[in-house]
Amino acid sequence: MNLHIDLDGEVPIYQQIRDRIVEAIARGEAVEGDALPSTRQLAADFGINFHTVNKAYDLLKREGVIRVNRKSGAVVRRDPSSGRAEPGFVAGWEERARVLLAEATVHGLDRDEVVRRCHAVLSEFRAEEKTTP
Amino acid sequence: MNLHIDLDGEVPIYQQIRDRIVEAIARGEAVEGDALPSTRQLAADFGINFHTVNKAYDLLKREGVIRVNRKSGAVVRRDPSSGRAEPGFVAGWEERARVLLAEATVHGLDRDEVVRRCHAVLSEFRAEEKTTP
Repeated sequence: MNLHIDLDGEVPIYQQIRDRIVEAIARGEAVEGDALPSTRQLAADFGINFHTVNKAYDLLKREGVIRVNRKSGAVVRRDPSSGRAEPGFVAGWEERARVLLAEATVHGLDRDEVVRRCHAVLSEFRAEEKTTP
Repeated sequence: MNLHIDLDGEVPIYQQIRDRIVEAIARGEAVEGDALPSTRQLAADFGINFHTVNKAYDLLKREGVIRVNRKSGAVVRRDPSSGRAEPGFVAGWEERARVLLAEATVHGLDRDEVVRRCHAVLSEFRAEEKTTP
């Protein structure tokens, strides 16, 4: 997993780490059961405080994407093949999607263009596994 | 413009106010040149500190969605008919869309379902005006 973060960006570092890890799992670069780098390792790689990495891992844990145990550290808990989305997640996701799509509309992004871009991004990601034939 | 905010929600109040205003403009409930309620009015309506409303309006101003002047207060500056999106906006929007779509993928939201939901939300909003026949 190769994470790029922008230390001078507007998005908080912990949020960038969280976002990049979610994207890497979506692309299939890490799957259920895979260990993530330790917080100290990642902090050293980026030259940042390990509390910042901890904050990212805490968030991923609360979201159910990883689990963290003392022995094995952070491990991927959810990937596209882990089963259907929980209703609570779907409701929250849709609210956030609504805001993002409203922004696109207000700022004059063409509707077809929005859908085309979403399609293009989704095609970079791993497809969920079908449980029924 | 009828704004619903959730005082006990996880999303910060100023962010909710900002989000609801963007959605209202996307739906065409307020158009370029329309005045928004004063910060004191909105604060009184919600029973919140007017600094919180100020923070939402500051954000909308930085995003180019409203302008604020001493005389007329907050006025809508951008609506779906105000012209094509700026390249800087599009790049930032796409990055955020990528994160949101990665989340959907990781949490097992079906790809067709994601696109279907996006279509449904976009159809609630105002279409941009076409400048060429």
